[in-house]
Amino acid sequence: METKHYDLVVVGSGPAGEKGAAQAAYFGKRVALVEAQEFLGGAAAGTTVPSKTLRETALALSGLRARQLYGVDLSLKGQATVQDFLRHERSVKEHERSRVEHNLSRHDIDRYDGLASFIDGRNLRVVSSGEVVARLAGDIILLATGSSPRHPDIFPEHHNIYDSDTILNLDRMPESMIIVGAGVIGCEYACLFSTLGVKVSLIHPSVTMMPFLDGEISQTLQKCMKQIGVELLFGEQVSSCQADESGVSVFMESDARVQADILMLATGRTSNTGLLNLDAAGIVTGSYGRLEVDENYQVVHPETRKCVAGVYAAGDVIGAPALASTSMEQARYAMVKAFDLYPYKENVAPILPVGIYTIPECSGAGMTEEQCKEEGLDYVVGKAYYNENARGMIIGDQEGFLKLIFEFNDSVQTPMKLLGVHVIGEIASELLHTGLGALIAGAGSNHFIDICFNYPTLGELYKYATYAAMGERARRLS
Amino acid sequence: METKHYDLVVVGSGPAGEKGAAQAAYFGKRVALVEAQEFLGGAAAGTTVPSKTLRETALALSGLRARQLYGVDLSLKGQATVQDFLRHERSVKEHERSRVEHNLSRHDIDRYDGLASFIDGRNLRVVSSGEVVARLAGDIILLATGSSPRHPDIFPEHHNIYDSDTILNLDRMPESMIIVGAGVIGCEYACLFSTLGVKVSLIHPSVTMMPFLDGEISQTLQKCMKQIGVELLFGEQVSSCQADESGVSVFMESDARVQADILMLATGRTSNTGLLNLDAAGIVTGSYGRLEVDENYQVVHPETRKCVAGVYAAGDVIGAPALASTSMEQARYAMVKAFDLYPYKENVAPILPVGIYTIPECSGAGMTEEQCKEEGLDYVVGKAYYNENARGMIIGDQEGFLKLIFEFNDSVQTPMKLLGVHVIGEIASELLHTGLGALIAGAGSNHFIDICFNYPTLGELYKYATYAAMGERARRLS
Repeated sequence: METKHYDLVVVGSGPAGEKGAAQAAYFGKRVALVEAQEFLGGAAAGTTVPSKTLRETALALSGLRARQLYGVDLSLKGQATVQDFLRHERSVKEHERSRVEHNLSRHDIDRYDGLASFIDGRNLRVVSSGEVVARLAGDIILLATGSSPRHPDIFPEHHNIYDSDTILNLDRMPESMIIVGAGVIGCEYACLFSTLGVKVSLIHPSVTMMPFLDGEISQTLQKCMKQIGVELLFGEQVSSCQADESGVSVFMESDARVQADILMLATGRTSNTGLLNLDAAGIVTGSYGRLEVDENYQVVHPETRKCVAGVYAAGDVIGAPALASTSMEQARYAMVKAFDLYPYKENVAPILPVGIYTIPECSGAGMTEEQCKEEGLDYVVGKAYYNENARGMIIGDQEGFLKLIFEFNDSVQTPMKLLGVHVIGEIASELLHTGLGALIAGAGSNHFIDICFNYPTLGELYKYATYAAMGERARRLS
Repeated sequence: METKHYDLVVVGSGPAGEKGAAQAAYFGKRVALVEAQEFLGGAAAGTTVPSKTLRETALALSGLRARQLYGVDLSLKGQATVQDFLRHERSVKEHERSRVEHNLSRHDIDRYDGLASFIDGRNLRVVSSGEVVARLAGDIILLATGSSPRHPDIFPEHHNIYDSDTILNLDRMPESMIIVGAGVIGCEYACLFSTLGVKVSLIHPSVTMMPFLDGEISQTLQKCMKQIGVELLFGEQVSSCQADESGVSVFMESDARVQADILMLATGRTSNTGLLNLDAAGIVTGSYGRLEVDENYQVVHPETRKCVAGVYAAGDVIGAPALASTSMEQARYAMVKAFDLYPYKENVAPILPVGIYTIPECSGAGMTEEQCKEEGLDYVVGKAYYNENARGMIIGDQEGFLKLIFEFNDSVQTPMKLLGVHVIGEIASELLHTGLGALIAGAGSNHFIDICFNYPTLGELYKYATYAAMGERARRLS
C-alpha cells in the first residue's frame, strides 16, 4: 500500500482536531484527518452539546421558577424519560456533526475512518475492521484523541453504574442518584439532575471544589447547589461500593453510607493514547496516559522535557483544563507554531477562560483573589449583584454576582489595571466575554466606566462592579 | 419661605435624574432632587422594567418552543389575565424603586416631592397639592423630566385606546389589537403580545422601520415579526379611527381597514416640559416640547443655539435615542462637564448602543452598513449565524446572526479596524457588549481572533464573524 504524504496528519475530529486541521488547511497545507469513531465531532458533539441541550430543560424549569411566571403552566410531563428530554438533542448532535463534516470538506481536508497508530515518528497506519486501510506520512502530526472516563477499581462494573459517556443513555429518570467527584463534570450533572427533580448525593474527597475558580464563586456555587437540593458529602473517601438490580450503595471511610437508584462516576479522565502505539514514535506519556507538551503544544518527554520532532497534541489528551474552548485554541496555536503562520495569530489567547455549566453557571478569567494573595499583589475587589440589577431582578437571580479584581494604585487619576473577572449566575459564560476582551486588551478601570451598556442588561454589572472597586480604593486612600 | 441653596438641583428621578444626581453627589456636591410622581424611578421603573418582566413570560413561551423541550408541559393558563403575568412585575418594580431611593439616600441627596417650576434661571419652586412646599436655588440645574406618549387628534379618547403608559393596566388579554407606529415601543409590544397569543396588526406610515438599525437587522426583524404572526400594515396612513365597547376600527388612506379589540398608540412622545415654566428661565423648546442641548448636554435655544447658563438636560426630555442606557450616560457626562469633574470621566461613551427588546432582540453600536456607504468608507462585512453555532443550535434560534463591519485594508498582515457591531437574536443586547468594548478600545480584527471564547456560547460568533470578514478580504485581494 502506497503511503500518502501530507503536510499535516490530525488524529481525532473533536474541537481540537477539527480546528487544528482547518487552521492549517486555511493556510494552504495539505491535511489528512483520521477519526476512529463512527461520528465526527468527538466529545463536543457526542456529550458536551447533548448534555447542554438537556440542561436547557433544567434551565427552563429553574429559570421559570425564579422568574415567578404565574401565568404559565409549567410542569414536567408525568412519565418523562430522559429520551423525551433528549429528542431535541439528537437533531442538535446531528447538526453539529454535519457542521464538522462540512467544515472539513470546505477546507479540502482528506478524511480517513479508522484507528490511527504510529509506524514511526512520521508514519501512521489507519486500521478499520481489523485491516490496514491507509498509510499516512505527515511532516507534522497533531494528536487530538481526547480522553475517556476513568473507573476506579473500587466501583464494580454494573448497569446501574454510569459515567459521563453513558449517563445520557439512561432509559428512565431515576428517583435518586449518587455522583462521585465534584469536578466540572460531577458538578454540572449534579445541578442538572437535581433541577430535573432527581435526589442527588455528591461525594467528594475534599471539602472544597474546583480550586481553579475564585474562592467566592466556588463557595457560592456550593451554597446554590445545596439550595436546589444537592446533598454534598464533602471530605468523604469512598471505601466500597455495591450495586445490584435495586440500586447502588456507597460506603465511606467515615462509616457514612449512601444509597440511590444509580451512581455516576465523575472521577477524572484518562487520555486516549493507549492504542496509538506511541512507542514506535518514541513518545512516553505522563500519568493517566496524558501527553505532555511544551508551551507550543509540541509533545515532550514527561521527565526530560525533550521535544518529539514534528508531533503536537491538543485538547483533552493533554489534560486540564480539558474544555472544548481551550482545546480549539490550543490546536490553532499549535498549528501556527508548527507551520510558522505568524503573524496571523501571534499569541495563543494569553488568558484562557473557564466556563462551567452548573446551575447557576460559573465563569472566570484572569487572576483569582487567591492567586493575587499568593503572588503578593496589592488589589481591590469590586462586586455587583444580580439582585441589584434591573435585568437580574427581572430574571429573579438571587445569588448571582460579578466580581472584578483590579491592581491597586493610589492615584485616583490613574485607572486601575484589570486582573481578573469572575461571574456566577445566569449566562455567566456569555457575560464573561466582555471582561475577557478587556483583560486581553489590557484595559483599566476606566474601560467599563466609559462603556454605555444597554438597559436592562446584566452587562451593566461591569460598570457597577467597577464603581464598587473605585469606591473601595477611595476608602483605602481616605 | 427660605430658599435652599444647592450645587445641583435635579428635576426628575428616572435614569437620567438618578444617575446625574448620584454622579455629582459622589464628588461632594450638595444635591437636591425633585420628583412630581408618587414613585421614584421614572419611566424605567414605571414602564420599562415592567414591560421587560412581561416579556419574560413571552420569551419563556417562544424560547421553549424553539428549544423543542418536549419533556416539559408548557402552556398559558386558560384564563390568564395580564395581571397574572404581572404579579412578578410588581415586586420587581418595587425593588427598582427602593433601589433608586436607597441610592439617593446613600449619596445624601435631598429629596423634594412635588412639581418643580422655574422662578428665574437659578430658582425653582416645588408645588405639592397646590401649595409651594419649597424654594430651591441651584448653581446647576439638571432637567430630566422625561416624556409622555403623544396622542394624535385623529384617535378618539376611549378606554379601548391605550398607549405605552396605560397598556400594562389591561385587565384582560385581548384577542386582537392594533398598534400604530413601528418604532421601538410599537415593535416591542407587537412582538410581546403576538408571542402571548394576541392577533396583532402593526400600522406604520413607512415601508421600512427603525432606520437607525443596520438594514439587514431591520429586515430580519420584519421577517421574524411576520413569522410570529404580526400583521404588518406598512406604508399605510391612518385616515380615521372609531372606538366603541365592541372594539376599535382604523381606516387607512389606502381604503384598507383593520379592526381589533383594542388599539395601542406608539406614535411618538412629547417631552414633559409644559409645567416647568421655562419662560421664567428664558428657555425655548423645540418641537414636541423637546429641550435642545449642545454636545455637553447644556440647554440651548433651538434656533440661535445660544447656551442657557447653568441649565442642563438629559434623557427622554431631549428626544432620541430616549433609552434608559443613553439617558444615564448623558446625565453623568453632563455633570462631569457642569462641575468640571475631569479626568474622572473624560468622555461620554463615544459610542452609544441601541438595544431593542423585540422578540428576537436587536442591538447595535457603531456604524451601520448604510452609514459606511453614505460616508464612502471601504469596508468588509463578516457574519456568523446562530444556527451554525453550538449554543445557537441548542436554543434553536433559526434567524439570529452577528454582523461585524471592518474597515477594509489590503495588507493581510494588518488587522482591520472594527467599525460596527450588529446583532439580532436571543440575548442580542447582552451579546453586543463584547463588541462594544472592542469598538471603544479601537480594536482590530485580531482582537476577536485572540480571544478564547467559552464553549458553547453565542460569544463565539465574534470569532467566526471575524473569520468570515477576513475570508472576504482575502477573496477581494485574490
